[in-house]
Amino acid sequence: MTMPKGTLFIVSGPSGSGKDTVLGRLLAAHPEIQLSISSITRPMRQGEVEGEKYHFITREAFEQMLRENALLESNVYLGNYYGTPRAPVEAAIAAGRDMILEIDVNGAAKVRAQMPEAVSIFIMPPSLEVLEQRLSGRGTEDAETVRGRLKEAVGEIARAADYDYIVVNDDLDEAVESLTAVIVGQRAKIARQKYLIDEVLQDVKSRNW
Amino acid sequence: MTMPKGTLFIVSGPSGSGKDTVLGRLLAAHPEIQLSISSITRPMRQGEVEGEKYHFITREAFEQMLRENALLESNVYLGNYYGTPRAPVEAAIAAGRDMILEIDVNGAAKVRAQMPEAVSIFIMPPSLEVLEQRLSGRGTEDAETVRGRLKEAVGEIARAADYDYIVVNDDLDEAVESLTAVIVGQRAKIARQKYLIDEVLQDVKSRNW
Repeated sequence: MTMPKGTLFIVSGPSGSGKDTVLGRLLAAHPEIQLSISSITRPMRQGEVEGEKYHFITREAFEQMLRENALLESNVYLGNYYGTPRAPVEAAIAAGRDMILEIDVNGAAKVRAQMPEAVSIFIMPPSLEVLEQRLSGRGTEDAETVRGRLKEAVGEIARAADYDYIVVNDDLDEAVESLTAVIVGQRAKIARQKYLIDEVLQDVKSRNW
Repeated sequence: MTMPKGTLFIVSGPSGSGKDTVLGRLLAAHPEIQLSISSITRPMRQGEVEGEKYHFITREAFEQMLRENALLESNVYLGNYYGTPRAPVEAAIAAGRDMILEIDVNGAAKVRAQMPEAVSIFIMPPSLEVLEQRLSGRGTEDAETVRGRLKEAVGEIARAADYDYIVVNDDLDEAVESLTAVIVGQRAKIARQKYLIDEVLQDVKSRNW
C-alpha cells in the first residue's frame, strides 16, 4: 500500500496578527501536526530548553549544514545564524505527517523556492485600525515605537499576496476554524488521495469479472 | 469595498459512496451554502415539489435555454432533458455565496469545461470491499444487479483523478469533517481574500505617514 505524503505548511503573520495564539490553539487540538524546530547559534537564554523551540548548535555545526545544503533556509541576525533543517521536514512529509513552519515573509519566500509544493498561509488582522489598536494596546511602548511596528507589519502584509491562503484573525475562534480547515482540507487533495483510486482499480483487476 | 466571490463546488460520488448522507449533514450545518437546482422536463412525481430538488419546465422552455446558452450542462435521459441553469450559479458566486452542484462524472466534466475555477470533490468509499458490502447490503437486489451497480461505481471511481479533492467516506463524521474543511478552507484562498490586503494598503496610503 502506497502511503500518501504529508504537507509542509508555511505560516507567517505580522506582529499584531495574533499568529502565535491561533497556531497554539491549532496545535493543541491537532497533536498529529508537527512544528518545525529551527537550528540557531545564539546562546541559550534562561528558561529555554534544547529541542523545544530551537536546536542550539555551534557555529561550526551550522556552517557544515550550510555546506551540505542541509537547510531549507537560513539567516544571520546580530551575528548569529538561524535556519530550518531540511531533514526533519522531508522525513515528516515522507511519513505522511503534516508539518508547520512558522517563519517571516523573507524566510517563507526562500522555503517556497526550495519546496514549491509547500502550502503557505498568511495570518492577518482584519484591518489597519485593528492592527493599530492591537499594537498600541500593549501600552508599554511610545507612539514612535508603535508606528515603527505598524509600518513593519504593513510591509509584511504587502507581501501576503504571495501566499496560497489568507487567514483573517478578527474573531479568534473563526481564525482557528479557518486555519484548521485549510490544513485538514489539504489532506483531501487529489495528489494525496490518488493512491486510493489506484488501490480500488488494482483490486478490480485482481478479480476476474 | 470589494466583495470576495463565492465558489462553485462540483460534488460527485458513485452509488455506495454515501454522498447524499454526507452532503445532507454538510448542508444542515451550513445553511449559507446553496444547492444548485436542476431544470428538468420529465413530469413531476408524487411528493415532488417545484423548486425543491428540481425546476419542472416545459420542453419548449428547456430548448430555449439551450439556444440561449443558459445551461452550464445538459443531458437527455429516457427522452427527457436535464440541465443546470447558469444564472443562479453565477448570481450566487457574484454575491460571495458558495454553491454546491451535485452531478455525475459526465456532467462534472462538462461544468469544469465551462467554469474552470469551480472546485470539484469526489466522494468515494474506502475500498472495493466496503463498496460491495454497501451495494449488496441493501439485500433487495440479486447478485447480478449488485455486480452491475458495482461495475458502474468502479467506472466512476476510475475518473475520480479528474477531481481536485477526494473525500473518503469510511467513517461518516470524518467524511463530513473532510468535506466541510475543503469548503471552509477554500474561503481562505488568496483569490478570495486578496481584497483585504488591498484594503489595508489603500488605508495606509490615505494616511500621511
